[in-house]
Amino acid sequence: MLIGQGFDAHRFAGPADRRPLWLACLEWDGNGIEGDSDGDVAAHALIDALLSAAHLGDIGTLFGVGASSAGAGRHGTDMLQETVEYLHAHGFAPSSASVALVGNRPKIGPRRTEAEAALSAAVGCQVSLTATTTDGMGFTGRGEGIAAIATALVEPRG
Amino acid sequence: MLIGQGFDAHRFAGPADRRPLWLACLEWDGNGIEGDSDGDVAAHALIDALLSAAHLGDIGTLFGVGASSAGAGRHGTDMLQETVEYLHAHGFAPSSASVALVGNRPKIGPRRTEAEAALSAAVGCQVSLTATTTDGMGFTGRGEGIAAIATALVEPRG
Amino acid sequence: MLIGQGFDAHRFAGPADRRPLWLACLEWDGNGIEGDSDGDVAAHALIDALLSAAHLGDIGTLFGVGASSAGAGRHGTDMLQETVEYLHAHGFAPSSASVALVGNRPKIGPRRTEAEAALSAAVGCQVSLTATTTDGMGFTGRGEGIAAIATALVEPRG
Ligand SMILES: [Zn+2]
Ligand SMILES: [Zn+2]
Ligand SMILES: [Zn+2]
Repeated sequence: MLIGQGFDAHRFAGPADRRPLWLACLEWDGNGIEGDSDGDVAAHALIDALLSAAHLGDIGTLFGVGASSAGAGRHGTDMLQETVEYLHAHGFAPSSASVALVGNRPKIGPRRTEAEAALSAAVGCQVSLTATTTDGMGFTGRGEGIAAIATALVEPRG
Repeated sequence: MLIGQGFDAHRFAGPADRRPLWLACLEWDGNGIEGDSDGDVAAHALIDALLSAAHLGDIGTLFGVGASSAGAGRHGTDMLQETVEYLHAHGFAPSSASVALVGNRPKIGPRRTEAEAALSAAVGCQVSLTATTTDGMGFTGRGEGIAAIATALVEPRG
Repeated sequence: MLIGQGFDAHRFAGPADRRPLWLACLEWDGNGIEGDSDGDVAAHALIDALLSAAHLGDIGTLFGVGASSAGAGRHGTDMLQETVEYLHAHGFAPSSASVALVGNRPKIGPRRTEAEAALSAAVGCQVSLTATTTDGMGFTGRGEGIAAIATALVEPRG
């Protein structure tokens, strides 16, 4: 049983940006998150946790960084699926994962089941999602951005 | 073996508030933490980690949010115990957990053993507690508040 | 199987300090990190995760705090090795660990393999390292300091 830790944080885009909000593999109401990809911090932190558990680098190793990278313009679901295929190709399978979101919006509760289903389908194992705020403190509390901490267990494939 | 990640952060109350300081299921010297419940970030992050590992939502699912919620006015120990009963009722048992506190006060070291005993008794498995500061940086470093990152392993009950 | 969570954050030293930059058990180009030891947040967060998993306190328990502590002037590799010897002496062995670095510099990617080899050699099991930034937000985004979140699995020794 191998363990991985992941973290990610991105800025919310300005209202003039009219960028859709993608998070935890779903589209939500409200203004979006900056990033070369869709800025889905839940998916990105989870990708880092999965790659780290399998000792296969991090999201930058697999997708690169910047506007011309392999991750540019892509959604979290798609990137998560490619990550899991990469793990499979190297003889690993995720067995359990969890993501803790930290930010003021969107409100996760009403769509948690839907988000967890989307994350779990992309990864191929149970993925849980929690969400909390920082009581107005720090960059997440001021609404500048959103962060995610993820952990994952990965096993050698039978 | 299922894994969960949890995070929580709350503001320290002002000195005029004369609020007692509850943390990691113990009362400490010094001014308290804001919150509808006792503001015990260690207990709350741990609750999120446990619920997430069992795929049973998060602290808001179980206790609600706000002054009229089921968590209002309650202590961390009590909320942790209810969380573990909820896990048991759904066929899960915690097997190991750990909380990393981030903040300037209280000093945990002298009472770590006592705090770990209280957390472990509430959860019914070994729970460890570490504590660190952020060298004066960020909201924890400025003493505005305190944060906790928790992880837990949960197993199906035999 | 026991789990531990660790966190650490330190300030970057000023340019006048000419302090070497030690991180993840390697020396890097650029100005160093403040601290009584070498300020290696990756090693320190990992030490907390390992000690927490084994229910043996935290880095302050083992190495003390301050300029006259047992950790003063020491490198992360050395402190990690002593931590693992301490776990062994208490009947535990690390089985898997992962560290997520959060900061603007140094760029980890080009030397990730080297850093992971150094961390893994010190701990005696696979240790993976990921790295991310916070898009200019918070104390890590402003370049004031660097943080690390770590998790570890530890087993009773056969
Ligand atoms: Zn990202
Ligand atoms: Zn709370
Ligand atoms: Zn340190």
